[in-house]
Amino acid sequence: MDYYALPIANLIEELSKLPGIGRKTAQRLAFYILEMEPMEAEKLANSITTAKEKVKYCSVCCNLTDVDPCYICSNKKRDDSVICVVEGPKDVIAMERTREYTGLYHVLHGVISPMENIGPDSIRIKELLKRIQDGDVKEVILATNPTVEGEATAMYISKLLKPMGIKTTRIAHGIPVGGDLEYFDEVTLSKAMENRREI
Amino acid sequence: MDYYALPIANLIEELSKLPGIGRKTAQRLAFYILEMEPMEAEKLANSITTAKEKVKYCSVCCNLTDVDPCYICSNKKRDDSVICVVEGPKDVIAMERTREYTGLYHVLHGVISPMENIGPDSIRIKELLKRIQDGDVKEVILATNPTVEGEATAMYISKLLKPMGIKTTRIAHGIPVGGDLEYFDEVTLSKAMENRREI
Repeated sequence: MDYYALPIANLIEELSKLPGIGRKTAQRLAFYILEMEPMEAEKLANSITTAKEKVKYCSVCCNLTDVDPCYICSNKKRDDSVICVVEGPKDVIAMERTREYTGLYHVLHGVISPMENIGPDSIRIKELLKRIQDGDVKEVILATNPTVEGEATAMYISKLLKPMGIKTTRIAHGIPVGGDLEYFDEVTLSKAMENRREI
Repeated sequence: MDYYALPIANLIEELSKLPGIGRKTAQRLAFYILEMEPMEAEKLANSITTAKEKVKYCSVCCNLTDVDPCYICSNKKRDDSVICVVEGPKDVIAMERTREYTGLYHVLHGVISPMENIGPDSIRIKELLKRIQDGDVKEVILATNPTVEGEATAMYISKLLKPMGIKTTRIAHGIPVGGDLEYFDEVTLSKAMENRREI
């Protein structure tokens, strides 16, 4: 165990709890912070405190937001008859980047994963069903990741929605734009073949 | 530019100012912090504030410390006739890990680097000279890194110390323990040959 002054040891300890930050990186960041302008370090600390204070879950779509309902849910220009279901807030950002989708979102905050003890009740599926019952939703787009858990979660939700008579779609699998055929696995390739379209 | 709620955008911005933390990593860390237990996030923010408040430079060796003089400088068991000069606080930690060195340190907080506009006055050389004039120092070990700047800084300091009649030494270059000859460059190898010792 290395010797550090207590406040430095604490700082390293807290930083190393962050994902992808090992002890070495935490040490490097800690010394960087210690040599920063005091004002800058204060801004960093405040940004954490403020974000935790101000950012809550949107009561409609469960996305992270500082106003409730969030900017997307309260935007009258958006089509509230379509809901795109995603795993996390980062997926909303990715989807918004396309500038093409004009419907609303629903953020699950996870996927069903029996291995990690995450069941349907641990993610925001109830909230999705309630939205659909209360509102005038015509289509639900399942945009969970194309992983085993993401597929299983999409399947689970689609089974719940079927009896409600809601159109349920899944984002397409295929070759990413700019991708090179030879680098994709056979499952992706066969999905791309299966979903081919006439041009 | 992605759309984020303002407190999230701020958090990402502040995190991405840290070294080695790009925008993508900052985004990932920010969302992790937002999903953390509020208590945990507060501990992180507090560890930054507390470290900045409590940690100062030791008035003797210029190392980072929460007491002045630092634990090493005020430890009566250590040999105050030897000073090991290092570039940064991390080097003190590395050296202490050997558990063999019992002298004191002097932390330069940088190296002379004309390319980056860092001259001798930008690092803690004055403080070193003052310590030597005031104290009873017999040996100064120059343990700056074996880089061009580290070597130049060691050379510069040794030239200042020569006229003061202080024994000045430089840590040895050579093959690291456990290293494999074939992977080292020719300069390291020729240094290792040059500094060979009879066994």
